[in-house]
Amino acid sequence: MYIVILAGGSGTRFWPLSRKSTPKQLMSVFGGKSMLQRTVERVVPMHPKRVLVVTNALQATETRRQLDYIKGVPIDVIEEPVGRNTAPAIGLAATLIARFDPDGIMAVLPADHYILDEERFRATLLKARDVAQGGSLITLGITPTRPETGYGYIEAESEAGGEAVAVRRFVEKPPLEKAMEFVATGRFYWNSGMFVWGACTILDQIGTFMPDLCSALAKLTFDAEMWEISDLKPQIEEIYGSIKSESIDFGVMEKAEDVQVIPASFGWSDVGSWSALPEVMDSDEDGNVVINAAGSVSVGSDGCLAYGGGKLVAFVGVKDLVVVDTPDALMVCAKESAQDVKKVVEELEKRGKTEYL
Amino acid sequence: MYIVILAGGSGTRFWPLSRKSTPKQLMSVFGGKSMLQRTVERVVPMHPKRVLVVTNALQATETRRQLDYIKGVPIDVIEEPVGRNTAPAIGLAATLIARFDPDGIMAVLPADHYILDEERFRATLLKARDVAQGGSLITLGITPTRPETGYGYIEAESEAGGEAVAVRRFVEKPPLEKAMEFVATGRFYWNSGMFVWGACTILDQIGTFMPDLCSALAKLTFDAEMWEISDLKPQIEEIYGSIKSESIDFGVMEKAEDVQVIPASFGWSDVGSWSALPEVMDSDEDGNVVINAAGSVSVGSDGCLAYGGGKLVAFVGVKDLVVVDTPDALMVCAKESAQDVKKVVEELEKRGKTEYL
Repeated sequence: MYIVILAGGSGTRFWPLSRKSTPKQLMSVFGGKSMLQRTVERVVPMHPKRVLVVTNALQATETRRQLDYIKGVPIDVIEEPVGRNTAPAIGLAATLIARFDPDGIMAVLPADHYILDEERFRATLLKARDVAQGGSLITLGITPTRPETGYGYIEAESEAGGEAVAVRRFVEKPPLEKAMEFVATGRFYWNSGMFVWGACTILDQIGTFMPDLCSALAKLTFDAEMWEISDLKPQIEEIYGSIKSESIDFGVMEKAEDVQVIPASFGWSDVGSWSALPEVMDSDEDGNVVINAAGSVSVGSDGCLAYGGGKLVAFVGVKDLVVVDTPDALMVCAKESAQDVKKVVEELEKRGKTEYL
Repeated sequence: MYIVILAGGSGTRFWPLSRKSTPKQLMSVFGGKSMLQRTVERVVPMHPKRVLVVTNALQATETRRQLDYIKGVPIDVIEEPVGRNTAPAIGLAATLIARFDPDGIMAVLPADHYILDEERFRATLLKARDVAQGGSLITLGITPTRPETGYGYIEAESEAGGEAVAVRRFVEKPPLEKAMEFVATGRFYWNSGMFVWGACTILDQIGTFMPDLCSALAKLTFDAEMWEISDLKPQIEEIYGSIKSESIDFGVMEKAEDVQVIPASFGWSDVGSWSALPEVMDSDEDGNVVINAAGSVSVGSDGCLAYGGGKLVAFVGVKDLVVVDTPDALMVCAKESAQDVKKVVEELEKRGKTEYL
């Protein structure tokens, strides 16, 4: 199997730790290794034929630097000149793989997701690979554990019972009442953005539903047999000059006929904002989560998350806060307002304070 | 007039900025100069005969260092070997002054209070000096602006109308209902801990109500005419070995007969905790107070105070918080829990984390 890691994100919801040149996937969100490093390490035991990391020019150097230590699996870092959402990135990776190995199956994984049970994750990918060999587009659907309104949902034709089942439709982030209905049916899954399919299969589908993208990608010329892709940069730049920004969900998945969902329950979070971290990290005895700190003291406080800049962190009479300390910026945020962190970034852009972006 | 500044406090309520060796009065609570420096600068325009700063051994070096730049007024830093509350410190200063200048009037000022209108403050001190020359003990009573339950109160015999009036009694910190009654009468004042009296007058009163302290202080020998007090350390250490800890309020003021209060309304706060700072500092347009920061961004936040460690500070969806960033410790505290900051210090003591004390 080939692993395609989408690592071009430039999330602002983890400011002030994430900045333009070090977005979430390149950050040590949990302390220790970055999310990208964890994502790659997670697939190494599967011995993938190649790992293709698609990122952008601004982050390519740091991306290469972070992956340099990983041995035993060939890793290619592919630079997009500009982000065009997921469809072009996936199409580009599929083009490379299909020319080199027309029967190749590829798994598409975001670089910035949290996965608790890695064994189970790998087993799910292998199951998906087997189904994908039959020519279906496979999406991993996370079995919902709560009526989350921050995720898109996938409705299956029937209850899956652990096996692949046909997808009826994709649903955008629902209001709470809808989300509760969805979860109650047992036929809805969270849309994880993780996919498995044949490289030729997805290119066929792109050809059907996104013909412009397909014909642009068809122009790529390289020595596929020798996997000689190091000189592709000028060609990719030219192709990206003409293609439109589009997600694979909207561009292909919502329109394709043979889409199946494989239920997954390996403990997953897209870690979409600071407030998602406590869901996936152990809290201390006071109910707070403290990362990158010299210790913590809690007086009448719980439900807080601190990214501590290596310091001692003290909470006094506070609940459900996120505190992030970096060398040049300090943020205090209510957990329930974690989505508004991007407004700080917008405000700083407006003020021209590029040093904090 | 002589100025006696009580600078021996070792407050823990401004942790993590205040530490054992740099308590509140030596801190730049407001940014810029320390509270002690502001206290001394505030009296310099009155041309006091001498300024006596009473502090303790641990803080003496930093106290001297901070006052070194002040010229034009003689400053003596007097070290207590150990804190014994206000009565011994005041008795010691009074003894020195009385021997040198038996008619000397002394003003006793805490080193860590905030005063808004400095002109008015000085005018009040001069008025108090004039009354004190008649032999009364004068206390400055702050005209209350709210039914504060965190201060002690002074009840006057009658409404003062700006002039000195006899004190009926001192009252401990009252519950809210009582405080509201007090404020409504117009005869109650906040006990500021600022006093003016003749050095001999207060020594007489100490002789009456605290005879042990009086006889201990009487043992001091030095060349009073030449103000040769630099070699007093061993004598002071011996005296302090035998004397009891006592406040001047309890030891003398509550018992003495000729005590008068002079109403004061120069904008005052004892800055007893982090939550007191917003009362006396201007907030920004978002209603937050930011000290020692590179700037601030507020998204749906107000009523917060940040001591920012020189950084940009961002508030997102939070209200009424205190955030203090120092090189080795970071604290987040609900304003209403500001009194509990000392519990963090207690906890750190219990854990033996002396590096943070």
